[in-house]
Amino acid sequence: MNPLELSQLPTPSALIDVAVMEQNIRQMQARISALGARFRPHVKTSKCGAVVERQLAAGASGITVSTLKEAEQFFALGQKNILYAVGMAPNKLAQAMRLRQSGCDLKIITDSIESARAIVEFGQTHHHRFEVWIEIDTDNHRSGVKPEDPVLLTIGQTLENGGMQLGGVMTHAGASYALNSPAALQAMAEQERSLCVHAADRLRAAGLPCPNVSVGSTPTALSAQSLAGVTEVRAGVYVFFDLVMANVGVCSTSDIALSVLTSVIGHQIEKGWVIVDAGWMAMSRDRGTGTQTIDYGYGQVCDVLGRPLPGYIVSSANQEHGIVSGNGGQQGDITRQFPLGSLLRILPNHACATAAQFNEYHALDTRPAEPRSPELRSTKVEIWPRFGGW
Amino acid sequence: MNPLELSQLPTPSALIDVAVMEQNIRQMQARISALGARFRPHVKTSKCGAVVERQLAAGASGITVSTLKEAEQFFALGQKNILYAVGMAPNKLAQAMRLRQSGCDLKIITDSIESARAIVEFGQTHHHRFEVWIEIDTDNHRSGVKPEDPVLLTIGQTLENGGMQLGGVMTHAGASYALNSPAALQAMAEQERSLCVHAADRLRAAGLPCPNVSVGSTPTALSAQSLAGVTEVRAGVYVFFDLVMANVGVCSTSDIALSVLTSVIGHQIEKGWVIVDAGWMAMSRDRGTGTQTIDYGYGQVCDVLGRPLPGYIVSSANQEHGIVSGNGGQQGDITRQFPLGSLLRILPNHACATAAQFNEYHALDTRPAEPRSPELRSTKVEIWPRFGGW
Repeated sequence: MNPLELSQLPTPSALIDVAVMEQNIRQMQARISALGARFRPHVKTSKCGAVVERQLAAGASGITVSTLKEAEQFFALGQKNILYAVGMAPNKLAQAMRLRQSGCDLKIITDSIESARAIVEFGQTHHHRFEVWIEIDTDNHRSGVKPEDPVLLTIGQTLENGGMQLGGVMTHAGASYALNSPAALQAMAEQERSLCVHAADRLRAAGLPCPNVSVGSTPTALSAQSLAGVTEVRAGVYVFFDLVMANVGVCSTSDIALSVLTSVIGHQIEKGWVIVDAGWMAMSRDRGTGTQTIDYGYGQVCDVLGRPLPGYIVSSANQEHGIVSGNGGQQGDITRQFPLGSLLRILPNHACATAAQFNEYHALDTRPAEPRSPELRSTKVEIWPRFGGW
Repeated sequence: MNPLELSQLPTPSALIDVAVMEQNIRQMQARISALGARFRPHVKTSKCGAVVERQLAAGASGITVSTLKEAEQFFALGQKNILYAVGMAPNKLAQAMRLRQSGCDLKIITDSIESARAIVEFGQTHHHRFEVWIEIDTDNHRSGVKPEDPVLLTIGQTLENGGMQLGGVMTHAGASYALNSPAALQAMAEQERSLCVHAADRLRAAGLPCPNVSVGSTPTALSAQSLAGVTEVRAGVYVFFDLVMANVGVCSTSDIALSVLTSVIGHQIEKGWVIVDAGWMAMSRDRGTGTQTIDYGYGQVCDVLGRPLPGYIVSSANQEHGIVSGNGGQQGDITRQFPLGSLLRILPNHACATAAQFNEYHALDTRPAEPRSPELRSTKVEIWPRFGGW
């Protein structure tokens, strides 16, 4: 890569290393396909058509969204098979119905009798048959109905008797983010799988339909040894990976496809501080590694080519100022090592949060021109828009 | 106010209570005017024309920005007197020059000889005379040159001899955010004032011009007992205030003009959790109150009219899920107290960070129809766009 080309970009910018991202996409798709399930990526991480296009081209079956705006945006780009994986708020039913009436095969979720009734009531009033999946709690982490809870069957019956289409069950083992050993991750993946399949079995035993069994989080998707009974897997952050996932142990820092390009704007020599123009507005306020094995502050500092500079992190951040410091042991004049105006790249704690701070990505196509000389790479920079908001 | 009107809004939404905001604007302007200085609000908090218009109408003299995009946007709205209060990166000089050549009276800042030289070199090459202010470090917090540092005079001479316009000195006592007693805040304000004035005096004694002496942060602006020698004060977050500022002690929760409107989307009854659709994407990941006297989690929960529900906070957040819980002592059925689909408002830890998660505000004009009956208020909702990015 030619750093001179990066020097034309504004700072801070969100860079995607396209080759690394495409490897992440290929590997996840191959893994889930080999285990016999479909893969439905969660697009909340990128919110970007060019990224999702590559996930679909690699073999994904539909997408997962976290907002109805994501559903609208990707439906407008041609994607019909969409799971809205956040518990349905009654005030969003009209918007969901409009999407379905436009031809979008949008599935919504519920985890309570009250919510199932609200869906049925709205659907009956408007003569609309929603497809509804039931959210299962397999890790005691956030939302969902427990697989053994009698309420599970009542929800299913409420939907079916109310004329809605019971499309299946889904779960998300978000508790996997707190783990960091292969054994614990495999156990969590098996727990997520088995409890979700169990919920599906209970519905079927009660005479209710349950065609879809959907599980997933990036750590469990990459750790599952079996997907027996599962029809599809969902994952989001794997597309970029991040430092939190590196601490969990499901990627290395070289798999992280998203970084923030930043300029050195000053120094505080006595303190050993380098001031950069990537503050929390660029990195986000996410401090996800703060409770993990390696605390990266607001991000791992890399040189302009994306190679980590060991021990250098963004140790503190204000809105448009990042403070880069070393964790001791470094020698030398920081004004020479990090001259004013020089460029650095920062790997993020949490790709979903950092990406959300930007209106666009700068996508770097940095394939090696010759496989044996990684320094000699042909570079192409494209702007890929992303959206935010609701 | 009629809650039925709020029920027409999407959730999550960023609400501004216009009457509360206007009171914040009036009180700050009156305070600084009474102390004999001009006031230059920092627009990084709102990034919204309708908000800044009110700050200017109340008497503000120019604006402060944290990005050149803010400068461009507000210059397009007619504001010329702009201080870009982040150390100048060499790669942004061309953009700054274009703005100035378009008629914008943009001032840039520096805190090092290297940066001053880069500005001089660029200015001379392009036959452009930048107005440059020198950033002073008065609190050992982030950037700036110490007032006693010989480098201060060298920077001034570099700029003057290089043909640039030395416009003054500026400082920001960000360390004030860590304080929480009137005495400590007053002392910090006096430190910020006296050290910045001292830097100006040193420049003048060396025969250099220093027409502007600019200080400020919301806590010090609201605590200063004297502004002798100061020509202008800057502050940003005061326009909305937030829970961090309430903990610092410079506002109460009733002064907080920004809140996030959210819908209840589920319950975990055993855990006493209410799930809402304001996750960290809406609230931001800012946990600024986590190290303060009162930790509000991801925000203080209020009823739909904005009245705090004591003890209820957003205790945990995922991307589009917030978990509301009480800190003990609460009784009763949470599904009755917080029914599915009901609306709540969340006060933010850090208004700058929360506001940045939204593309627009919903501005509520909620003046009491009769002063003695606050429940009977005339409500008008307007959409005020805001921008993000760089």
